[in-house]
Amino acid sequence: MPVGTAATVKAMSPDAVAATGAEIILGNTYHLMLRPTAERIAQLGGLHKFMNWPWPILTDSGGYQVMSLAKLRRIDADGVTFQSHIDGSRHRLTPARAMEIQGMLGSDITMVLDECTAFPATEEAAAASMRLSMRWALSSKEAFKASAGYALFGIVQGGIYPELRAESVRTLVDIGFDGYAIGGLAVGEGQDLMLSTLDFTVPLMPTEQPRYLMGVGKPSDLVEAVSRGVDMFDCVLPTRSGRNGQAFTRRGTVNIRNARHADDPRPLDRRCACPTCGHYSRAYLHHLTKSREILGAMLLTWHNLQYYQDLTAMMRTAILGGTFSQFRRAFMEQETEEPLLS
Amino acid sequence: MPVGTAATVKAMSPDAVAATGAEIILGNTYHLMLRPTAERIAQLGGLHKFMNWPWPILTDSGGYQVMSLAKLRRIDADGVTFQSHIDGSRHRLTPARAMEIQGMLGSDITMVLDECTAFPATEEAAAASMRLSMRWALSSKEAFKASAGYALFGIVQGGIYPELRAESVRTLVDIGFDGYAIGGLAVGEGQDLMLSTLDFTVPLMPTEQPRYLMGVGKPSDLVEAVSRGVDMFDCVLPTRSGRNGQAFTRRGTVNIRNARHADDPRPLDRRCACPTCGHYSRAYLHHLTKSREILGAMLLTWHNLQYYQDLTAMMRTAILGGTFSQFRRAFMEQETEEPLLS
Repeated sequence: MPVGTAATVKAMSPDAVAATGAEIILGNTYHLMLRPTAERIAQLGGLHKFMNWPWPILTDSGGYQVMSLAKLRRIDADGVTFQSHIDGSRHRLTPARAMEIQGMLGSDITMVLDECTAFPATEEAAAASMRLSMRWALSSKEAFKASAGYALFGIVQGGIYPELRAESVRTLVDIGFDGYAIGGLAVGEGQDLMLSTLDFTVPLMPTEQPRYLMGVGKPSDLVEAVSRGVDMFDCVLPTRSGRNGQAFTRRGTVNIRNARHADDPRPLDRRCACPTCGHYSRAYLHHLTKSREILGAMLLTWHNLQYYQDLTAMMRTAILGGTFSQFRRAFMEQETEEPLLS
Repeated sequence: MPVGTAATVKAMSPDAVAATGAEIILGNTYHLMLRPTAERIAQLGGLHKFMNWPWPILTDSGGYQVMSLAKLRRIDADGVTFQSHIDGSRHRLTPARAMEIQGMLGSDITMVLDECTAFPATEEAAAASMRLSMRWALSSKEAFKASAGYALFGIVQGGIYPELRAESVRTLVDIGFDGYAIGGLAVGEGQDLMLSTLDFTVPLMPTEQPRYLMGVGKPSDLVEAVSRGVDMFDCVLPTRSGRNGQAFTRRGTVNIRNARHADDPRPLDRRCACPTCGHYSRAYLHHLTKSREILGAMLLTWHNLQYYQDLTAMMRTAILGGTFSQFRRAFMEQETEEPLLS
């Protein structure tokens, strides 16, 4: 899922997002509740209409950004009180309020309110944080107004501790959700710890509902997580990198600001079908990025989103064809080559 | 002509520029000679290919930006020496070098090197400056490599002084150019002085070749200049304003950052056929602009360029239909209404 933080996938028109093959995007409750506010979006007909994205939208619950962005946050048993990073105004988020906001936005997939456990955390702290999230998950489920075609996902917490993750999965499955997310990863623990956590967490999760790894990640993270059974992802990496001159290609990651691209007439990735690779040279992308031109952000973001959509499409094909382990091996070999030598 | 300063019309893809109806854009020699350099663009196949704009391009000669942007500029009889505003590197621009650079870029319409006379200037200073520009115009013509389908335009100078403008036109017509531009306006003299200068200058200019008012302007400037016989314009106003939250509409200029737009579900201009007006509310554009989202710059720039293209298309239609004076009167009445009351 491309990330559409503030009711826009940054530097992309909705048509362009859809043209990459994306069928669902993510919106951030924290950002939208502060500006322009959920009430205003509801008044204007909901988030889909507001941002001209008629396809599905998943919204997070706001908990993660409250912890990473808000000022003077204070957590209690019932929710979290915080000050806006924009204007210092005071707000409160509870499970019921998170459901109300996502309902006003018109989210197709609503996420329960949770506390994203920090890393590192002792087992005791991770347990207390996970159990708070589980109580909020139950309150979220009770407050969620179920209706056909709209889903509510639970979020597994528990840090890097197998028994806590197992307890969290059991608790959520007892409550019953339409899908299950894995939270509290990609928060600084590194790929090895993330994958080992998936190794013992994913097998415990229901297979008949989507399994969603939140906030992940690099292309190799996606391939490794899919190999462990994950179905869904969101990440700002393709869009944020696109604005910073970093491009993902079939031969690895490229920093287009590097001087060696200044005279290079070749496309970024000759096997990519996006408009950026179809019409523009690395030299031009280098020039735009060095000149801080908006078109540079537009073209690199488009390419990066296309790369991520192509990567997930290839993984789906490989899974259906029974060739995923070959795909994974070939991907890892390719990734570790010197990028763009040919 | 939309302005494509650094080989991009800011915040627009070439497809989007073409979709507004634009058939020609302007490129800035000063910016391109410094970065990525004309030599590099030539090596990569020329400016059209570099920026993926297969339609005509007019390039200015660089003289105007040398005066407004460069550091430590020193003018002499043969040209101007200056330091780059980007990295302080030393460069020299002469009539021959300006022709060489524009040739390397592959410009469809090349402009002679001129000195843009400052405002205010005494008649004596304006005369000396104009005569220098006329010597450079001759040198430019001598250095220009003529070929079928490629044009060279002269630039009339002379400040606000009728006799100097007349002398400049006579000199340029004697040399002989494919089109004639009016330079040295829109440099702080105000609309009244600009129009009175056009009043006595345009009638002296050949009618069989394009008459181009450089760097102008506001919508009302265009209507008034067309009524005085001007055929061509370039201006950064639609693109720059689009990045600053200012929109041009059929009911006047609108600052979309104003709080009164925050809840407004209506399109920016209900009579506009651009995608911005087709798919987005003023409330959404307000939100994007307040949130400093790139999509806000993209959507407002598109709308503004569409507005300018529609305005010139309407003027062409009115001229062909013999109804231009009615059009002009109606335009001025509409412009002075309270914007967006209905």
